[in-house]
Amino acid sequence: MSKIHNFSAGPCILPPEVLLEASEAVKSWGSNGLSLIEMSHRSKPFVAVMEETRALTKELLGLPDRFDILYLQGGASLAFLTAAYNLLPEGGSAAYSDTGTWANKSIKEAKHLGNIDVVASAKESGYTGIPATPKVNDTHSYFHYTSNNTIYGTQYKGVPTEAGVPLVADMSSDIMSKKFDASPFSLIYAGAQKNMGPAGTVMYAFDKDALGKTGRSIPSYLDLGVHLSKDSMFNTPPVFPIFTTLLTLRWLKNLGGVEAIESINDQKAALIYNEIDRNSLFTGHADIDSRSTMNATFKLLDERHKDAFNEAWASAGISGINGHRSIGGYRASMYNALPLESVKVLVDVMNELERTR
Amino acid sequence: MSKIHNFSAGPCILPPEVLLEASEAVKSWGSNGLSLIEMSHRSKPFVAVMEETRALTKELLGLPDRFDILYLQGGASLAFLTAAYNLLPEGGSAAYSDTGTWANKSIKEAKHLGNIDVVASAKESGYTGIPATPKVNDTHSYFHYTSNNTIYGTQYKGVPTEAGVPLVADMSSDIMSKKFDASPFSLIYAGAQKNMGPAGTVMYAFDKDALGKTGRSIPSYLDLGVHLSKDSMFNTPPVFPIFTTLLTLRWLKNLGGVEAIESINDQKAALIYNEIDRNSLFTGHADIDSRSTMNATFKLLDERHKDAFNEAWASAGISGINGHRSIGGYRASMYNALPLESVKVLVDVMNELERTR
Repeated sequence: MSKIHNFSAGPCILPPEVLLEASEAVKSWGSNGLSLIEMSHRSKPFVAVMEETRALTKELLGLPDRFDILYLQGGASLAFLTAAYNLLPEGGSAAYSDTGTWANKSIKEAKHLGNIDVVASAKESGYTGIPATPKVNDTHSYFHYTSNNTIYGTQYKGVPTEAGVPLVADMSSDIMSKKFDASPFSLIYAGAQKNMGPAGTVMYAFDKDALGKTGRSIPSYLDLGVHLSKDSMFNTPPVFPIFTTLLTLRWLKNLGGVEAIESINDQKAALIYNEIDRNSLFTGHADIDSRSTMNATFKLLDERHKDAFNEAWASAGISGINGHRSIGGYRASMYNALPLESVKVLVDVMNELERTR
Repeated sequence: MSKIHNFSAGPCILPPEVLLEASEAVKSWGSNGLSLIEMSHRSKPFVAVMEETRALTKELLGLPDRFDILYLQGGASLAFLTAAYNLLPEGGSAAYSDTGTWANKSIKEAKHLGNIDVVASAKESGYTGIPATPKVNDTHSYFHYTSNNTIYGTQYKGVPTEAGVPLVADMSSDIMSKKFDASPFSLIYAGAQKNMGPAGTVMYAFDKDALGKTGRSIPSYLDLGVHLSKDSMFNTPPVFPIFTTLLTLRWLKNLGGVEAIESINDQKAALIYNEIDRNSLFTGHADIDSRSTMNATFKLLDERHKDAFNEAWASAGISGINGHRSIGGYRASMYNALPLESVKVLVDVMNELERTR
């Protein structure tokens, strides 16, 4: 089988050595020959996996000491609700940024629990850019934003400290892709299935001191304090997703950590965006100053080249670059595990298409 | 490595052929050589996995047509809340049975949403038995019970239709182990990690017609109707746990389905309980008429034999039979994938201990 260049938007490419080690562990793991997935989550070896996963996450993200890490279930979709339950006081307000589909979902769920003000929005422009962050009234408990928007290919370039209140972010699609200062945050959450591992677990990184101030009676599964008091094992954790996340985090550490991958991610993004701008057949979707290093969205200027382009990238072993159904075109998702080489192959295909038309 | 007899209480033993096929899929799955866990959940092959998993669950459980199946995240611990959100009207009441730790948790979470009456309880006896089910006042929307109690080794022997209202059950630890008539139920839920697969997904089987009657505004992730409208893909599903659950369900179907495994489970239970009752060194924990076919709880009558017994079962390749920390002693968990042979080995060890003391 020829090499596959996997640009899937998520679940997405994982490092080959991670896949091999995860595969092996499903067959046999540890000293007694049992599979990883048929032993107690309270066995010493799995407790050690959970602890290393939490500690390595904190280390790789360079989080302040007061932060703690949980790996739970329910994805960002449940985190939208959990965030508000834990940080929005009864009768309180929070400020949200609307940068598209996922941001809208975070707003919808938070509205179950309080007054949500959308203080920044890219809706008018069709979500092609990242809106400026205003100074937020300090009656707002926090400012929530979606750091990277996979569908539109837009990304916050820095941490929006301009809001002037504690920050909360859904970083599902760019966590671990670049360095950032976490000190202004109360909470960061991210589904694992882009840069951290397979589908089935969501990471919460939060300032312990920010919890317990809402005056709410919080259902147990939605209470980060409950999960923290049980060291992320309030209930049976998703064993395989967490183990495979640990393997991916170890891979990242061996590579040199977030700083090292950021440099590679910047090279990949430069390569594809240079080609999109240079090539007369293509145009980018997102505003130039809001372009995502994770998801490059673009389209053909002339749909007559569509069949030729689709055939060319498929022949080159490229998969997963069709755009999201809501905006069409193409989307090259370049998560951490995607090699620079794969982007070069895509750029060559685009280049060749122009040369031969 | 000698054969392991894995009596773990959960996550627990899975069929060897399931482990091998799941392991292989993590390396490479499908026509293009990608791993199962690095492709989109919306790809045709994975959508087919989800649909087959849901259909096969319905088939194996012999559910009425009006029932539908979802595989979500959050375990039974989140299902405790989800059940009440979807079935308990604003200001309404529900009747619950208290058969131990997990039943208590279901009661605690439901109390966030309405008036919960504990109409049956085994608390006074230390949860060694299953309490009789009273006729429930029909102002109660449903009667909730925990069908099998892993810690104490107790199990409902039949479906408690005496309640006279729709039933809701947490069947996490005995789902797919024996036939039952699902027609009196509004909802059944079960974490996969005993008889259905690995940790990381929870099955909901419910009567579609019972939804949408609470008058509540339900957060999306807790709304079974939302998940149903998206065919169990409202958000990224836990790909590996669901795939491996499908493999386990196929294994069960090939074996002859629930009826066939029930017969084997009955043989396993008869074997261990006969030995517990026959052997002068041991005594059972649960009341005889409430004994679980899934988890046999027992202890040594004389703790002086403890070291010898522990050494003997460990030497025989037995693992996972220490009792839950809350009651001590021993617990032989005999989930679907545990071979009859493993129970025979345990019984031989018990027998030999008596013979040589």
